[in-house]
Amino acid sequence: MTEIVTAGILVIGDEILSGRTKDKNIGFIAEYLTNLGIDLKEVRIVADDEDDIVAALNALRQRYDYVFTTGGIGPTHDDITADAVAKAFGVPIDYHPAVVARFRERFGDALNEARLRMARIPEGAELIESATILAPGFKVGNVIVMAGVPSIMQAMMDIVAPRLRVGQRMLSDSVRANAKEGDIGSPLRMIATAHPETSIGSYPYIDDAGRPNTNVVVRARDPEKLKVAMDEVKEMLAGLHGSRNPVQ
Amino acid sequence: MTEIVTAGILVIGDEILSGRTKDKNIGFIAEYLTNLGIDLKEVRIVADDEDDIVAALNALRQRYDYVFTTGGIGPTHDDITADAVAKAFGVPIDYHPAVVARFRERFGDALNEARLRMARIPEGAELIESATILAPGFKVGNVIVMAGVPSIMQAMMDIVAPRLRVGQRMLSDSVRANAKEGDIGSPLRMIATAHPETSIGSYPYIDDAGRPNTNVVVRARDPEKLKVAMDEVKEMLAGLHGSRNPVQ
Repeated sequence: MTEIVTAGILVIGDEILSGRTKDKNIGFIAEYLTNLGIDLKEVRIVADDEDDIVAALNALRQRYDYVFTTGGIGPTHDDITADAVAKAFGVPIDYHPAVVARFRERFGDALNEARLRMARIPEGAELIESATILAPGFKVGNVIVMAGVPSIMQAMMDIVAPRLRVGQRMLSDSVRANAKEGDIGSPLRMIATAHPETSIGSYPYIDDAGRPNTNVVVRARDPEKLKVAMDEVKEMLAGLHGSRNPVQ
Repeated sequence: MTEIVTAGILVIGDEILSGRTKDKNIGFIAEYLTNLGIDLKEVRIVADDEDDIVAALNALRQRYDYVFTTGGIGPTHDDITADAVAKAFGVPIDYHPAVVARFRERFGDALNEARLRMARIPEGAELIESATILAPGFKVGNVIVMAGVPSIMQAMMDIVAPRLRVGQRMLSDSVRANAKEGDIGSPLRMIATAHPETSIGSYPYIDDAGRPNTNVVVRARDPEKLKVAMDEVKEMLAGLHGSRNPVQ
């Protein structure tokens, strides 16, 4: 039996929706989860608005095995993720004694009300922390709450990854078709239909010389099934080029 | 009265969720809409799965004035966006005579079944097309369906933009705080509370010399209110630096 573990991502932040900041976290987490053996099924980006965060979080956490959030755990008034997570789970939130103690040691006289906000953690959450992470992330239920700054988020992924349940990895292989997507659509469909346990995608692009080309990607959890389908794709492509450029 | 026009984005594609392709469209559309005077409120990324697309589309189109989709309008079996849009609206979908005629002229003998799929357009849709766009996008109701390839999507945005209703633009101004975010959290909150018609965000970053710094962004539709709040932020920052680095 193949176990499948699923996930959603919730990106929180007005600055992403305004276009001022370009998100760099979704692509990183997506690739990271694929490599772990967790299938990312959906991503949402919402504003710094408690109702919006709670609604998105409740939709995603009920639907997927894990939800990864980024953003909104800093020291300012627009950092409301921890409160929204507590509200979504219906649990209290308070200053976490161990985090407060560490902050006192670390910040000394600079520990003000704003920084103390970063020590507010929903009841029952496990901390995601290290010596190099200033404000901790946390995991509550199946929701993993991380920073929005990419380098910190990436450090948090490394810390939380070993605690996650993973499924059988989705493997993939790709081939450059040297053909326009429209010329391989019909044969690709036939191959896809014949191999329902693989997922075949085709991605058109313009090469450096300005010519249209296509990458074909085959994905499957079973390496043997992946190979069989990919061999058929390659055979189809060879036939296509053979008939176009006859050798004799 | 200030008119507010809202939007959502729906990105469709397994390749984004697997992390293989990094999305470049969300940031572009977000910035484009902000400049037009349309407030982007939510983004979702879903797989090439009809039920998922229909559910996300119906959620977003009922909630926002416009929904912009990218991806899934090419010639292959995994391009199912047009069908999903028709299903979401409960309208028929068929080969669009004008598009088929143009394809015949353009592709000649290369017009195969796969390419003809790109001429399938939901009933009642307006085309988004130009001489340089191979397969048209379309607008049906409040949903704008665009290509996933960034250069084509961008051309489609330019075509559709003049047809959109826009609201009063959200203006913004930013200042580099030369301070750690935790040192300005409390005064920023006071300024934000005193100026409810502005939105104040703070974005920490590490500068080139490795020092923590913060950008403060004030946003408002009214330029006067923006200026008043930003002046208070700058005054607060000047006071902060004055008290830290006394001149005498």
